[in-house]
Amino acid sequence: MSNTPAYAASAAGKPLAPFSIERREPGPRDVVIDILYCGVCHSDIHQVRDEWGGAMFPMVPGHEIIGRVSKTGAEVTKLKVGDMAGVGCMVDACHACPSCERGQEQFCEKGSAPTYNGTEMDRKTPTFGGYSTRIVVPESFALAVPKNLDPAAAAPLLCAGITTYSPLRQYDCKKGDRVGVVGLGGLGHMAVKLAAAMGAEVTMLSTSRSKEADAGRLGARAFELTTDPATFEKLAGRLDLIIDTISAPHDYNKFLGLLRPGGTMVLVGAPPEPTPVAAFALIGGNKRLAGSLIGGIPETQAMLDFCGKHGIVSDVEVIPIQQINEAYERMMRNDVKYRFVIDIASLGQA
Amino acid sequence: MSNTPAYAASAAGKPLAPFSIERREPGPRDVVIDILYCGVCHSDIHQVRDEWGGAMFPMVPGHEIIGRVSKTGAEVTKLKVGDMAGVGCMVDACHACPSCERGQEQFCEKGSAPTYNGTEMDRKTPTFGGYSTRIVVPESFALAVPKNLDPAAAAPLLCAGITTYSPLRQYDCKKGDRVGVVGLGGLGHMAVKLAAAMGAEVTMLSTSRSKEADAGRLGARAFELTTDPATFEKLAGRLDLIIDTISAPHDYNKFLGLLRPGGTMVLVGAPPEPTPVAAFALIGGNKRLAGSLIGGIPETQAMLDFCGKHGIVSDVEVIPIQQINEAYERMMRNDVKYRFVIDIASLGQA
Repeated sequence: MSNTPAYAASAAGKPLAPFSIERREPGPRDVVIDILYCGVCHSDIHQVRDEWGGAMFPMVPGHEIIGRVSKTGAEVTKLKVGDMAGVGCMVDACHACPSCERGQEQFCEKGSAPTYNGTEMDRKTPTFGGYSTRIVVPESFALAVPKNLDPAAAAPLLCAGITTYSPLRQYDCKKGDRVGVVGLGGLGHMAVKLAAAMGAEVTMLSTSRSKEADAGRLGARAFELTTDPATFEKLAGRLDLIIDTISAPHDYNKFLGLLRPGGTMVLVGAPPEPTPVAAFALIGGNKRLAGSLIGGIPETQAMLDFCGKHGIVSDVEVIPIQQINEAYERMMRNDVKYRFVIDIASLGQA
Repeated sequence: MSNTPAYAASAAGKPLAPFSIERREPGPRDVVIDILYCGVCHSDIHQVRDEWGGAMFPMVPGHEIIGRVSKTGAEVTKLKVGDMAGVGCMVDACHACPSCERGQEQFCEKGSAPTYNGTEMDRKTPTFGGYSTRIVVPESFALAVPKNLDPAAAAPLLCAGITTYSPLRQYDCKKGDRVGVVGLGGLGHMAVKLAAAMGAEVTMLSTSRSKEADAGRLGARAFELTTDPATFEKLAGRLDLIIDTISAPHDYNKFLGLLRPGGTMVLVGAPPEPTPVAAFALIGGNKRLAGSLIGGIPETQAMLDFCGKHGIVSDVEVIPIQQINEAYERMMRNDVKYRFVIDIASLGQA
């Protein structure tokens, strides 16, 4: 296949710059997707800066991909040319282990193939992400995107959407449940929208009063400042479920105190250092501190279908790819409401 | 009612010594139980030494009580004179809040009445525990003890038994599940017996090779040394559920690595200081770190019935009450297999 325009980091911490990658010819079970939009995830920044270790360069980031199917292999049955399709954090897995059989390819025992900064299942061919004009993936890792969703605003559903949808489903979020969302950013704003659409009474827990109006607009019924100790008395034992999106250090034990007996706090943000947890904060109420990692392919499709039904997309600021390095700087200052999405048309076509 | 012989601590850290308490006359819904045996729980030591704060003296410890019903109030329907009955960690609750309605009286929103070192629901009358010849409790907090169980060996079921049974049930322990039990003491030996009886393949995780033979005798299929780093490689991702009974500081993250995706580690022991938890240890596998506190009355009865059906009791060393202070010292050295039980006959009758 001809060269594919992309933006890449050449080494850890280098700015992203124009680059050209080779995409494979589609096999019988592959689809070719002409990328329209790609969301910008915080993990893109961590990885191009090699903050998690083991980064592979040159790196073409991007795992919130929306585009149009432009070619399908002979055995492809679900998608057809012209369909709107999405690609999230994975492009393949072993399809045979217990996790894959449960539809949790993110926990594939052989290790799933990440959309970028990794290799295909051959463990040799590097994968390149959505900061590019085209991607080739097995049909089984391409998602059908509901037609009623704006494609630019739907792109972040592929990571921010599934990351918050999955724990809400795992812990059975339903009508009338009291759900706390900690932090109003890319993940937090999706958690509020999704939990509210499931019928939950959402309380936004934030350090900044400036977020209050937005939280309400997104669907939160209540807003409480986590900088005010009175919040932790007022809400003690009140919440069924907490989705914690914060990746800065913070005191889990205070938030565990907000849960009712049997309640769960789910971490989807990862502070850089381990956080001290008091055993009594869990024991005194049969409580749970859980983690959740994106979601498998079946659950990602269910999330997209749910979003289609409820008209849910991300709040986005669309940028040309030439602004990506500036966008990273703005994300580091939390200066985005709530997700940058790259208009891939700005990259030109191959 | 006439005076009731007991053993009490007069102040924090004082040795237990003979004492006399007044038990109330039974009301229409109360039962009087002539105590035969009382198990000795680690929390008895913590509380007589006021290590958890707020201790009330004089204190008569003991919440693993087995005895024979000697009198019943006019409205008592379930128990009759001569029945073997048990009393655990609670002697009353509000009976009206959502937790009580769910049968989780340990999380009563008004605060349940502890068997000792607390007050009745009037918040005035002090409660005294099972290191005494007699106790008066509402029938609703008296458990029926299966006739086939040795009463001395059944006493520890009322705390050590329910503390380990409840998390096994909460996390759906079933035939073929791979359950790790961390620590072989009073709680650990019950966790092994109960999980094995539920059909689980139990792996004992211990710091001491000397526990291996006993672990096998109790029902563990495997034994692994937690002092050997190879254990954490060998068992990585293998366990469905871990019951962690250790109250000394230890690294939770290492044990979380032993869980399969979606697995749970339940704390029933509480180290004195908070333990650092790495968010990625939970996120990378949708894992859960949970706590569990005894169990409600319906679940405690279910546990006793289960133990009756499977012939499960605690491994005990029966002592006269005159040896209680020495027993505490031996417990501090882990020199007991696996629970001391006081023969209350040694205390004499009122």
